[in-house]
Amino acid sequence: MITVDEALFAGKPEEGLRRDAWRILASALEAVDPERAIYRYLRREGDSLVIGEKTYNLRKIRRICIVGAGKATARMAKAMETILGDRIEEGVVVVKRGYTEVLERIQLVEAGHPLPDESGVKGAEAVLGILQKTGEEDLVICLISGGGSALLPAPAEGLTLEDKVRVTDLLLRAGATIQELNTVRKHLSRLKGGQLARAAAPAQVVSLILSDVIGNPLDVIASGPTVPDPTTYEDALRIVERYGLEDKVPPGVLQHLKKGQAGEIPETPKPKDPLFQRVQNLIVGSNELATLAASEEASRLGYRTLILSTFVEGEAREVGKVLGSIGKEILLAGRPLERPACILAGGETTVTVRGQGRGGRNQEVALGAALIIAGLPSLLVASFATDGTDGPTDAAGAFVEGTTIERALALGLDPHRHLANNDAYPFFAALSDLILTGPTNTNVNDLMLVLAGPRS
Amino acid sequence: MITVDEALFAGKPEEGLRRDAWRILASALEAVDPERAIYRYLRREGDSLVIGEKTYNLRKIRRICIVGAGKATARMAKAMETILGDRIEEGVVVVKRGYTEVLERIQLVEAGHPLPDESGVKGAEAVLGILQKTGEEDLVICLISGGGSALLPAPAEGLTLEDKVRVTDLLLRAGATIQELNTVRKHLSRLKGGQLARAAAPAQVVSLILSDVIGNPLDVIASGPTVPDPTTYEDALRIVERYGLEDKVPPGVLQHLKKGQAGEIPETPKPKDPLFQRVQNLIVGSNELATLAASEEASRLGYRTLILSTFVEGEAREVGKVLGSIGKEILLAGRPLERPACILAGGETTVTVRGQGRGGRNQEVALGAALIIAGLPSLLVASFATDGTDGPTDAAGAFVEGTTIERALALGLDPHRHLANNDAYPFFAALSDLILTGPTNTNVNDLMLVLAGPRS
Repeated sequence: MITVDEALFAGKPEEGLRRDAWRILASALEAVDPERAIYRYLRREGDSLVIGEKTYNLRKIRRICIVGAGKATARMAKAMETILGDRIEEGVVVVKRGYTEVLERIQLVEAGHPLPDESGVKGAEAVLGILQKTGEEDLVICLISGGGSALLPAPAEGLTLEDKVRVTDLLLRAGATIQELNTVRKHLSRLKGGQLARAAAPAQVVSLILSDVIGNPLDVIASGPTVPDPTTYEDALRIVERYGLEDKVPPGVLQHLKKGQAGEIPETPKPKDPLFQRVQNLIVGSNELATLAASEEASRLGYRTLILSTFVEGEAREVGKVLGSIGKEILLAGRPLERPACILAGGETTVTVRGQGRGGRNQEVALGAALIIAGLPSLLVASFATDGTDGPTDAAGAFVEGTTIERALALGLDPHRHLANNDAYPFFAALSDLILTGPTNTNVNDLMLVLAGPRS
Repeated sequence: MITVDEALFAGKPEEGLRRDAWRILASALEAVDPERAIYRYLRREGDSLVIGEKTYNLRKIRRICIVGAGKATARMAKAMETILGDRIEEGVVVVKRGYTEVLERIQLVEAGHPLPDESGVKGAEAVLGILQKTGEEDLVICLISGGGSALLPAPAEGLTLEDKVRVTDLLLRAGATIQELNTVRKHLSRLKGGQLARAAAPAQVVSLILSDVIGNPLDVIASGPTVPDPTTYEDALRIVERYGLEDKVPPGVLQHLKKGQAGEIPETPKPKDPLFQRVQNLIVGSNELATLAASEEASRLGYRTLILSTFVEGEAREVGKVLGSIGKEILLAGRPLERPACILAGGETTVTVRGQGRGGRNQEVALGAALIIAGLPSLLVASFATDGTDGPTDAAGAFVEGTTIERALALGLDPHRHLANNDAYPFFAALSDLILTGPTNTNVNDLMLVLAGPRS
């Protein structure tokens, strides 16, 4: 993970607003580092295991098992081993190929992401194997992070991974919403939609969740394996029908959904299911936590701070323009804050690709903002992907200042042309304005900030 | 002009957040009503005429003349007559055809807008006629509002209105920026770019300006007739050359610019010109004033308020999404303000037209926001054109709430389809969510607001 020191002293020491921006971004990353996230919410005090606001008596717990899936879960598992050591009976965690750590008691399974593969299916079966053995006096700790849904594919009985992939593909092409997609997928799985928690019952379950979904909807992150599912087989069937896919989905899929509708297969566990009385879902890392940490660091650095929203969405360059317009207001009118000021926003923007260039949503946020703040002194806007990877580039995002456009024009770079061609990466690369962190091993979406320096 | 009472009691009494939104919008409009704007900044106390922070001794002023141009200037002229009565010696104000008032001492000339016409040329000549007669002991009060540039066309000697229109058209088609366009136009005119002030010299000049340009750049509003012009004939000529238009512009235009470059025609007055020591430029109405008035009214109604920016620009629907995301944050996290909260933004968004429907930028802001706040209680977003006309529709904008999308779907209206087709007007018309004010006789761009009601 990037450290403030690395950022500050690797080759090119940053100064002024940029240095402060680095410090703020680094603080945000530190707050959502997977290991630290676990340490913050989980601690052992003698025979007590404190998880969030709950305390578990380790003497009354027979076995502790760790299961999970997601890109950051190797790091989370490592923290669990540090805290619980040999109290961990066994464990299996499925990670994206290459995202490993050296573990002692928890088995790591590397699997395909974003396309699920048979390794993932085997990982899911290993998870189910552990859960079959758990009893009432056991504690199952489930580690969840972004990518968990694809990494833990458990096709319902009689179905194959190919069946699930085919249905997903058909629904996406037909224009189904993410909600619709998830409803169907939960009803073709043995783990999603609360079914992992049911498989673990009657054991107690604690899910530690590093959220990569804006607003932290528990039933959506990794398809909510330990969260009640309000949707039904009936709903899933109607969605398949709505898009006229009855004859196109694999026959086994339609048959499965109809069996479910007829009550021949148990429904996913519903909100009133008593099994959830023994389930604790806890968000240990999220965009909000990162944004709050950024805000605290900005305050420490002497900025007045304001968190605009942790739900920001919209076309990247246009969100950038709004951020730029707020920077302009700070500078010219002292609103919404007097200088020195730091406005923070979290969320995830989107890019409508119309060009052939290279870039990412955060780089487009920055370029959009640059156009608005051009020529204004003592103003910086940054946008930054917390996983370190903005679009298909090796950059996390970019910084822009009032001088950015002028410097670009002096180099013969036309900002409008780069934006029109979705080509922000070469633009910022030429200006040395990219935010380069390398992979951060976490992902809580994006962070955006506006910094206005003190009056000069 | 719309009044709070009319809005509240015409047919359908509004309730709750909508009623508050109406009150806030009406307060904003009242603050930038052209007559009130004049009364706020200009008052007569015996022999003193107080204008902004300056005081003029009426006993030392021989003659007071009123000139001006712009869509709101008939109303401004009326206020001047009320304050100064028979102290007004003579006056000519050029307004858009139909935008008239009954005046006693000031002559109104109706002319073409947005395309300038010969009536405008005659109006400009009448203005120049008055200014020729003014002496050192005279006071010229110049009334300026949006549209003033087109309404006061005064082609330089030897040029025709057609010449100017042709050059403007060629530059626009060639992709020239607004700055470039203005540089050229100021050098083909006898009034723009500070030349009205020069024509009035040695008289004292006071310009009362109702700004329709974001950020109130004095040299841009109505082409800055009483404001120094830093650009030169040399600059204008280079712009014509840059776009390869030397052989395309009317020969007289090129000849005129070359004469100017050679010093055979006086330059537009530059910032150091001593004539501006006797010129006072005063913004009497602006987006900022409207936004501040809205903020005060929101406070009176019990809302915590925050002005985000008065420089908002960007693609309308995306700006709406950002506003929606801020509403969501207020509701779900109590940031950036605890409820009840009112977030205000001023500016002017744009719409990239891709569809065939009917709508306007403010209606698209609202529809973009509606998608984000769908399902959330006690939240309203409104966007509103202060001139009462949003795009080519009879609405000023629209209100949206958390129920908007649900109500639309129940009526069979697909919000995404309406947005894709730039067809927000029928969408909101069907829902009775349009903001209908009729023409407001002012224009200070757009006002946007997010209202979150008290915790229920």
